[in-house]
Amino acid sequence: MFESAELGHKIDKETYNIEVPKLREALLEAQIDLAKLSKFPVIILIGGLDGAGRGETVNLLNEWMDPRFIQTHGMGEPSDEELDRPMMWRFWRELPPKGKIGVFLGSWYTWPIINRVNGHTKVAELDQSLERAKRLESMLVAEGALVLKFWMHLSKDRQEKRLKLLEKNPQTRWRVTDRDWKHFKLYDKFRVIHESVIRHTSTAEAPWIIVEGYDPNYRNLTVGKVILDAINKRLDDANKKMAEVHAPPPLPSIDQLNILKTLDLSQKIEKKEFKDELEKYQGKLALLTREAKFKDITVIVMFEGNDAAGKGGAIRRITSALDARFYSIVPVAAPTEEERAQPYLWRFWRHIPRRGRVTIFDRSWYGRVLVERVEDFCSKADWMRAYSEINDFEAQLVRHNIVVVKFWLAISKEEQLNRFNEREKIGFKRFKITDEDWRNREKWDDYEHAVCDMVDRTSTEIAPWTLVEANDKRFARIKVLKTLCKHIEAALGKK
Amino acid sequence: MFESAELGHKIDKETYNIEVPKLREALLEAQIDLAKLSKFPVIILIGGLDGAGRGETVNLLNEWMDPRFIQTHGMGEPSDEELDRPMMWRFWRELPPKGKIGVFLGSWYTWPIINRVNGHTKVAELDQSLERAKRLESMLVAEGALVLKFWMHLSKDRQEKRLKLLEKNPQTRWRVTDRDWKHFKLYDKFRVIHESVIRHTSTAEAPWIIVEGYDPNYRNLTVGKVILDAINKRLDDANKKMAEVHAPPPLPSIDQLNILKTLDLSQKIEKKEFKDELEKYQGKLALLTREAKFKDITVIVMFEGNDAAGKGGAIRRITSALDARFYSIVPVAAPTEEERAQPYLWRFWRHIPRRGRVTIFDRSWYGRVLVERVEDFCSKADWMRAYSEINDFEAQLVRHNIVVVKFWLAISKEEQLNRFNEREKIGFKRFKITDEDWRNREKWDDYEHAVCDMVDRTSTEIAPWTLVEANDKRFARIKVLKTLCKHIEAALGKK
Repeated sequence: MFESAELGHKIDKETYNIEVPKLREALLEAQIDLAKLSKFPVIILIGGLDGAGRGETVNLLNEWMDPRFIQTHGMGEPSDEELDRPMMWRFWRELPPKGKIGVFLGSWYTWPIINRVNGHTKVAELDQSLERAKRLESMLVAEGALVLKFWMHLSKDRQEKRLKLLEKNPQTRWRVTDRDWKHFKLYDKFRVIHESVIRHTSTAEAPWIIVEGYDPNYRNLTVGKVILDAINKRLDDANKKMAEVHAPPPLPSIDQLNILKTLDLSQKIEKKEFKDELEKYQGKLALLTREAKFKDITVIVMFEGNDAAGKGGAIRRITSALDARFYSIVPVAAPTEEERAQPYLWRFWRHIPRRGRVTIFDRSWYGRVLVERVEDFCSKADWMRAYSEINDFEAQLVRHNIVVVKFWLAISKEEQLNRFNEREKIGFKRFKITDEDWRNREKWDDYEHAVCDMVDRTSTEIAPWTLVEANDKRFARIKVLKTLCKHIEAALGKK
Repeated sequence: MFESAELGHKIDKETYNIEVPKLREALLEAQIDLAKLSKFPVIILIGGLDGAGRGETVNLLNEWMDPRFIQTHGMGEPSDEELDRPMMWRFWRELPPKGKIGVFLGSWYTWPIINRVNGHTKVAELDQSLERAKRLESMLVAEGALVLKFWMHLSKDRQEKRLKLLEKNPQTRWRVTDRDWKHFKLYDKFRVIHESVIRHTSTAEAPWIIVEGYDPNYRNLTVGKVILDAINKRLDDANKKMAEVHAPPPLPSIDQLNILKTLDLSQKIEKKEFKDELEKYQGKLALLTREAKFKDITVIVMFEGNDAAGKGGAIRRITSALDARFYSIVPVAAPTEEERAQPYLWRFWRHIPRRGRVTIFDRSWYGRVLVERVEDFCSKADWMRAYSEINDFEAQLVRHNIVVVKFWLAISKEEQLNRFNEREKIGFKRFKITDEDWRNREKWDDYEHAVCDMVDRTSTEIAPWTLVEANDKRFARIKVLKTLCKHIEAALGKK
């Protein structure tokens, strides 16, 4: 793996001084083209050995490039804010939008490697982190990103030499820390693990680019040229039609049975009983969310459902039991401009709450496999891969002690018609009904099919769907509250 | 995950009798089209619960389909032959060629699941097996295969009912074993693990298709229609241009240094010394391969190198030290027709030896990233993904105690010219030199670049490349023998 990066590559000063101005000009041009086209982001990871010039490379890029279109993120120790959320959250929040370059000094590989070297994790656990990293990158690439992963390498001799050199010079002495020397003693151990990381995560679409870090001239020119070539190649490719997926068609519906049709929508609760139950479960919810142990968990509640199924009403019955300081509601409509410049999960990652909080999503990331699928807003390849991307996403939440509660509010086609007509009659409700609602209604069967596929593919042990019979609003609201309490109780270890 | 497969799907007899003849005819037609086009194989995995109709489904397919183009493989307990080789070998040997259908009853998922349920493995280990399965499937799909994974499911009630029903009928009683009831008691445990397997391995290109197994009519029609639709859709797509990879370009060569150029090709051994060394290392090799412990390992030696670099001569110096019963040489030339109908690694998998044997490959799977890359015999996407596929392949070998020794025999361009000219002069050597050799020589630089990329990307801790300076044949032969002895000694725990 490291063969070519231990040869002692060197570029003499004269050549360097001739090459650099040309390279810088070309890089600036490429940046402008990238920004103008605004079709894909460039994500650059800088990893590698201490003393191999990671920091210098980042500084150099900042010096060479147009600062309007590039941003650097030094991913050191995570902040309080970040520790309170799943590990990947800090990376998601810094992803560059389309047309821009994000440089990450330290990445999703840093901690898995350090934890393994220090013996905090086993090989199998390292492998799991690497697979997660690969899935993340493969999703980013599928969403259009150009991912460039640089690995700055030094042979053992040269690492020692470089550290000594840096130490000797009064201007750079501060850069060599005890930690660097401690890591140097572990050189061989690190090397084995680095090799395995690189082997496992060098994919065709996002291979590691290993650069010998000893000679700054060689390093700088190499990194600059790789970035330049890669951006220009992608700009040329931008209009090529990409990856179609050979995917087997979904399960045919050969009888007329599906999970939605088996719901008993006639279930009802009478007014009197409703009042009692509402009081009971809202009280329970209020107590649960005020327990001391609640500070260690996070709750994400998510509502999907037919138009006019009563999502808003159900949400209000939850929030009236909560402390207003600790919950927030995220209504999900068409994505903003900023959101459209990012992978589709980005706009949900940004709303992932801290520990001890509740966030309620009114519609969600499932839009990808519902409305976007049915209305052809994305390609088949896109929504087909979304199921596993969403499962990955939720698995990351759950691994971080987040309780994910997913509701589908189901009403019958007749009940929907009644509610639409009623809304049109009542002045203050009229804003709630639009032409789009009527259009969606025409695609009832397509939506039904998409919902069944969604439940089959994303109702998991760790984040199951709850289907709520919602023809009777009272019944639906109680079922929602009850289910939510049950999940929180389980998370608090009460059952 | 299992929601739709626990609804009690049912097809009445009348409908079934009307549908089946139409379906069978369409399936036969699709099979003929598939065979005629001969562009892709169909790989069908049948997994699921005991009593959910896995065996019946296979029988049915055999009844409905044209037996010339379909083959079933019941993957039960592995044979001696199979246990002596890496786990995946038994699947590779049964892969259907292009134009045909292979049905696997039991798959690469079976043992990982059973081992996990019985507590022989940890969650992380299960995850590793699943990732390997995913990588295998993703490679198969990239090579063109249509992969259909059926999961036959039953709810707990219905599994019990079905087992009892089968037991009551004298004709089917034999089918219900103690093992089935033992598994039934573990239903909940299995379910959690099945769910996680399905969640992790349902990819866009090869999703699990979950079928409720209780009613045979429903099950049969569903499986038949899915297969029919999938084959027909793929036949329609067959001429569409598929997946291009957005891949960053390889490392530019900005100085003129590369690993091949740093080799000191002037190294020599004099005749007298050569005789002594040859005797020494051949003796050593002979002893090592005759040790009792050698029966527990396998050795694969692989030669690549420039044309006329002396591969044949080096191989003969190895084999003359070996027991002729226990080694074989695999000369790799252009693939045969049968081999062209399979994924490119298939023709190497078939030659993987049993324990205690030595197999020497004269040229190898690296052809994909050398000649096929340079001569444009495969697309860029194909050779870009090959690096990680090859690393995966070798990792499977090494995990099975196979010692993988890889040699690149390097000569200079001048030395090659001398040897070519010499060969043309000497009658009995003339057959060894062809126009193709002269043509390859013109692409010397392209090959050099491909070799450097290959070493950088596939020289791993577990299966490193050894570059052999081969301008002097004696030097090369001794280095090869010495290196081989060292690797075998290490594998036998002697160093």
